[in-house]
Amino acid sequence: MRVYNFSAGPAVLPEEVLQEAQNDLIDYKGHGMSIMEMSHRSKPFMALMEEIEQDLREIMAIPANYKVLFLQGGASLQFAMVPLNLFSNSKKSDFLITGAWSKKAMAQAKVYGSVKVIGSSEDKIFSYIPQWKESDFTPDADFFHITSNNTIYGTRFTDLPNTGKVPLVADMSSNILSEPVDVSRYALIYAGAQKNIGPAGLTIVIIREDLIGKAMDITPIMLNYQTHSEADSAYNTPPCYSLYISGLVFKWVKKMGGLEAMLKYNEEKAAVLYDFLDQSALFSSPVSVKDRSLMNVPFVTGNPDIDAQFIKEAEKQGLVTLKGHRSVGGMRASIYNAMPLDGVKKLVEVMKKFEAQNK
Amino acid sequence: MRVYNFSAGPAVLPEEVLQEAQNDLIDYKGHGMSIMEMSHRSKPFMALMEEIEQDLREIMAIPANYKVLFLQGGASLQFAMVPLNLFSNSKKSDFLITGAWSKKAMAQAKVYGSVKVIGSSEDKIFSYIPQWKESDFTPDADFFHITSNNTIYGTRFTDLPNTGKVPLVADMSSNILSEPVDVSRYALIYAGAQKNIGPAGLTIVIIREDLIGKAMDITPIMLNYQTHSEADSAYNTPPCYSLYISGLVFKWVKKMGGLEAMLKYNEEKAAVLYDFLDQSALFSSPVSVKDRSLMNVPFVTGNPDIDAQFIKEAEKQGLVTLKGHRSVGGMRASIYNAMPLDGVKKLVEVMKKFEAQNK
Repeated sequence: MRVYNFSAGPAVLPEEVLQEAQNDLIDYKGHGMSIMEMSHRSKPFMALMEEIEQDLREIMAIPANYKVLFLQGGASLQFAMVPLNLFSNSKKSDFLITGAWSKKAMAQAKVYGSVKVIGSSEDKIFSYIPQWKESDFTPDADFFHITSNNTIYGTRFTDLPNTGKVPLVADMSSNILSEPVDVSRYALIYAGAQKNIGPAGLTIVIIREDLIGKAMDITPIMLNYQTHSEADSAYNTPPCYSLYISGLVFKWVKKMGGLEAMLKYNEEKAAVLYDFLDQSALFSSPVSVKDRSLMNVPFVTGNPDIDAQFIKEAEKQGLVTLKGHRSVGGMRASIYNAMPLDGVKKLVEVMKKFEAQNK
Repeated sequence: MRVYNFSAGPAVLPEEVLQEAQNDLIDYKGHGMSIMEMSHRSKPFMALMEEIEQDLREIMAIPANYKVLFLQGGASLQFAMVPLNLFSNSKKSDFLITGAWSKKAMAQAKVYGSVKVIGSSEDKIFSYIPQWKESDFTPDADFFHITSNNTIYGTRFTDLPNTGKVPLVADMSSNILSEPVDVSRYALIYAGAQKNIGPAGLTIVIIREDLIGKAMDITPIMLNYQTHSEADSAYNTPPCYSLYISGLVFKWVKKMGGLEAMLKYNEEKAAVLYDFLDQSALFSSPVSVKDRSLMNVPFVTGNPDIDAQFIKEAEKQGLVTLKGHRSVGGMRASIYNAMPLDGVKKLVEVMKKFEAQNK
């Protein structure tokens, strides 16, 4: 029996995607081999990669002057690739610090240039998105970095800094594909696959073409966006199976109605949970109302023993991986695209019952 | 119906591995979720990673003072990671150039230090392993690099340069697990998974502990072996599914009798093919007899039209991905661990028939 899996990543995948993957695992579409065994230079695999890219372009309405790159290494490798590739003039960068991942991104930028903190919410354990003043922005910065959704703390940007000609870079690992995005507002978007896209091992980069080809001399060939752009993401063997599953997820998103429909569904799911949290006497959300993530919902009782008890009880009911990140404590429900509404309803039901029993 | 897949990589996997993966795809061992959906920080996944490492250590008899790292990016990323991590003193390195991949590895080392070519077989399209003179070695080199098996050209090292105190580094992507290896002769072994280990997206590094922690200042955090060593390969999300399948392959290797048995089986398979090639009037091996790979067997007729005709005929008989690399031409049969003896026998049978018809 399938459980409801609230893991922050690797995370729940659509069941029909898994079913298709299972059916095709040993003999992919009559080719007499698994897609795991298929050369990345073979005609069927190259056609598949092309189709996967086109589907993503369609879903996200990616403008023609943006390249889509399928890479490896996760967002953590992008923390270095972004400065290595974008520090081409002033070697200055601006950061909005909204969590542990922003800080890691900034730490890597510091190795290759200078950084400026435009705002930070570290004072309150990153429970809100900090305000910014445009007059603080570095006018000749090589890039301006944000983390659009903060997996650990459950915040998201609902508004974007207006960085003018300074390239806006976003780590979208935990909310890509959860809502429509105006790609043209960004110079570069990156995301690890393992939350809203597919299995771990694939990283997606969407980059405006004019930013490619300016990497620092010390940049390893594999860390240069130009390498992968020129080779259509097949400079070396790509993470083929993660790509394949992600392609099935893209088909599923299209079938679900695209990102407008996903947003509506995600808002519906999030509302069920936040509405309950806001009236509960036991559980509460530590996150500033206007900055709440649609994807990651931390919640607490204020008592670590009761938290632990609840997590145990939920597990018995088939609701798993609800433990919060150690820096926030309590619980966290990650309710990515593939989490069904029924899973969220069941969670609230179990919370209600638990609350009644613990009055 | 399964075909015989002679792809150089991604390559054939043991059918029983694929069957187990198919069975467990939607519900991994009763956890109610796919292993693709499971947090890499969850107890079952962490236990699995530990088991995978132990199995590999057992199979390869990896000494205790070596770390095993599960990384991403392929051998191509190692081409940069090796110099970035090992250029800690003289910033000098020695290379034996035995193919396109050696050249790429050397090109990256050149960015971060100096390189010396100790021998090269480029004069004869890398159809042999060059001899070396110990007196040419750089005594204070930070490392000495070889490619132990050359996928494109079908050669392998049967003897190792005695580099003394200079760390010997080997790219073993295409022959790891094909035969017993004395790990203690090497300072660092690396291999992309997609040939003899598992699906693309995983890279294995086996490194002597004393070489960790000396990376150059410009090394990205994700490219520093220390990062992954300290975090037991879970600094960020590892390529979980590729790891899982590789783990199943390790179990299969153990069941087959380990690397001694694999070597015997691989020698038997290779002999069937080379013996035929050496007596054929139509087909021949372009590779120096003593340097012939057990894993990748290029062969030619000398006539590109006949080559193309043969490839077409073989395909009809269920023998696929036999086209040689463009730099060698002709055909190439990659006969990794998972290629059954019957596949090689069938190939020779089809070659015999084709030869008879094309007299």
